[in-house]
Amino acid sequence: METEISDLGEFGLINRLTKDFPITNPQTKTGIGDDAAILSFGERDVVVTTDLLLEGIHFDLRYVPLQHLGYKAAIVNFSDIYAMNATPRQITVSLGISSRFTVEHIETIYAGIRGACEIYGVDLVGGDTSASVTGLVISITCIGDVGKGEEIKRSGAKPTDIICVSGDLGAAFMGLQLLERENAIAAGQKDFQPDFAGKEYILERQLKPEARRDIIELLRKEGIKPTSMIDISDGLSSELLHICKSSEVGCRIYEDKIPIDYQTALMAEEFNMNLVTAAMNGGEDYELLFTVPLTAHEKIEKLKGITMIGYITKPELGAALVTRDGQEITIRAQGWNAFREDNVSELSS
Amino acid sequence: METEISDLGEFGLINRLTKDFPITNPQTKTGIGDDAAILSFGERDVVVTTDLLLEGIHFDLRYVPLQHLGYKAAIVNFSDIYAMNATPRQITVSLGISSRFTVEHIETIYAGIRGACEIYGVDLVGGDTSASVTGLVISITCIGDVGKGEEIKRSGAKPTDIICVSGDLGAAFMGLQLLERENAIAAGQKDFQPDFAGKEYILERQLKPEARRDIIELLRKEGIKPTSMIDISDGLSSELLHICKSSEVGCRIYEDKIPIDYQTALMAEEFNMNLVTAAMNGGEDYELLFTVPLTAHEKIEKLKGITMIGYITKPELGAALVTRDGQEITIRAQGWNAFREDNVSELSS
Repeated sequence: METEISDLGEFGLINRLTKDFPITNPQTKTGIGDDAAILSFGERDVVVTTDLLLEGIHFDLRYVPLQHLGYKAAIVNFSDIYAMNATPRQITVSLGISSRFTVEHIETIYAGIRGACEIYGVDLVGGDTSASVTGLVISITCIGDVGKGEEIKRSGAKPTDIICVSGDLGAAFMGLQLLERENAIAAGQKDFQPDFAGKEYILERQLKPEARRDIIELLRKEGIKPTSMIDISDGLSSELLHICKSSEVGCRIYEDKIPIDYQTALMAEEFNMNLVTAAMNGGEDYELLFTVPLTAHEKIEKLKGITMIGYITKPELGAALVTRDGQEITIRAQGWNAFREDNVSELSS
Repeated sequence: METEISDLGEFGLINRLTKDFPITNPQTKTGIGDDAAILSFGERDVVVTTDLLLEGIHFDLRYVPLQHLGYKAAIVNFSDIYAMNATPRQITVSLGISSRFTVEHIETIYAGIRGACEIYGVDLVGGDTSASVTGLVISITCIGDVGKGEEIKRSGAKPTDIICVSGDLGAAFMGLQLLERENAIAAGQKDFQPDFAGKEYILERQLKPEARRDIIELLRKEGIKPTSMIDISDGLSSELLHICKSSEVGCRIYEDKIPIDYQTALMAEEFNMNLVTAAMNGGEDYELLFTVPLTAHEKIEKLKGITMIGYITKPELGAALVTRDGQEITIRAQGWNAFREDNVSELSS
């Protein structure tokens, strides 16, 4: 039994979608059901971020399950809040829904959003829901809080600071390559079953990324306060250049220090792709890129899940990757660009 | 000279669009240029609202100028914040842009947003910009602040409270009817010039609505605190039912008290439409609907721009419109519904 959205109307749909979302943060005074949500943060600062996800640009429903899509749409916003050293508290979710979606489809997206909210302790407090004449539109705004002076911006990196990255890079990108290949093969065949054995990690990195709350907590516990921080959504190159530009500094990172999982490496080999390019420019890793003072070197060295990949320089030295054979290659942003033509695909129907 | 968006890329486009937006609120600590904006409200509460506007559903670019569209997209969010008795402070703007738009088109939308921000004292603090494979997508989130205990929700109306409305109703709806008629006529003729003389008011109400900050200020100055409040976006019927449901009350409003401008009345006659239906269900008025205790009657009576249209009853009496001849008609939400099929139009190309 599938339900047409027009049977419920906008308010009926919102009620149905949001009724199971609990309010868990004492800072959430009023959630859904009024013109606006009311939040109370007392002496803490409020942090706001927003992301717009469009079908055919940011996701392809031929191989992205709706529940994963909802989960990821929430996670990418939480990641931005953590990248400010803040804690995500509330989200608003706006959906534009084309007529081929049923209420159950939309509930599946919301189930993914709810899963993310439960794991990260975030309250759904509002949104807007509308028909769309074309593809699916997901717009999420996330609000977080941070103690005054505790925020970490992109602009605080200083020469000699160590550049660190959490987790490993390039896996989400290789997962996407795999999904696109299998989807292309499947298009010509009925009952095609893609073989994803041994590739679970790169698929999960693409379809169900996590926000690095654990890294924020670890750094706090160890008494390490980064001087600058950003999350890796568009790719390491692009994010490094953001930090360099905002902080008015240069940088050197070392090819042989970039953390890469073995599944990523195997997949790159299978695709005959340059592994470093994938790690530098692939994007969607949602790892944290940050800088710490040189004095934190010993502490950082001992922390699991964090890799030191280089150091900050004076601005006149520019941003460069030092290859295994000691050559310096200027870093250019080749990260994901929503306006690049090869990122604009046809809508699935 | 028009500029392709792909020439600038996402960050180039954002820089170009946002460089002229000043930061005017001391509560805005960090705006655009990091993972998230940072706001500081100290002892005040934070209010958040969001609206998603989709081409072909919420606007038709055949007759809506881009600058007006930007202005209105911001205003509808400010209106939601005022309807909480709060003050809008910041917005984030996310745009999905199809390839037929140039940078100059997008700048024109932003010029409208900037105009609204300047008039209402709101800072642009973030957003997201992306290609869209189909129509234009505008998602705006607005953040405001309100003194603790000063917020006005939909849920505070009590039996015997007086129901008030600001301004007049139905004009935006009649303006839309006029625009659609002239557009239909124009479609068959080259160099067609629509004659809008004497219809400026209803056109302005549709294309360039305002948020009723003046009414909020007036009520505050007069020491009147409404018991419940909502802004009229979907239509008086729909909003009245929201207040009745949230407050667990009923209501009676009087047909002959509903404020209607003469241009609205003339246009309804020309279209052979029921005037009261237009005023009750037309929507997009962005007036404030609110309730005040009976004791405020004398004060409210003297205030320009506010009309008393009825009173709140016990819930068992339901919600009804009392006609000129004394009949009671049950109020049903026939307001604007984004999922109703006749509200889903073809995209212009």
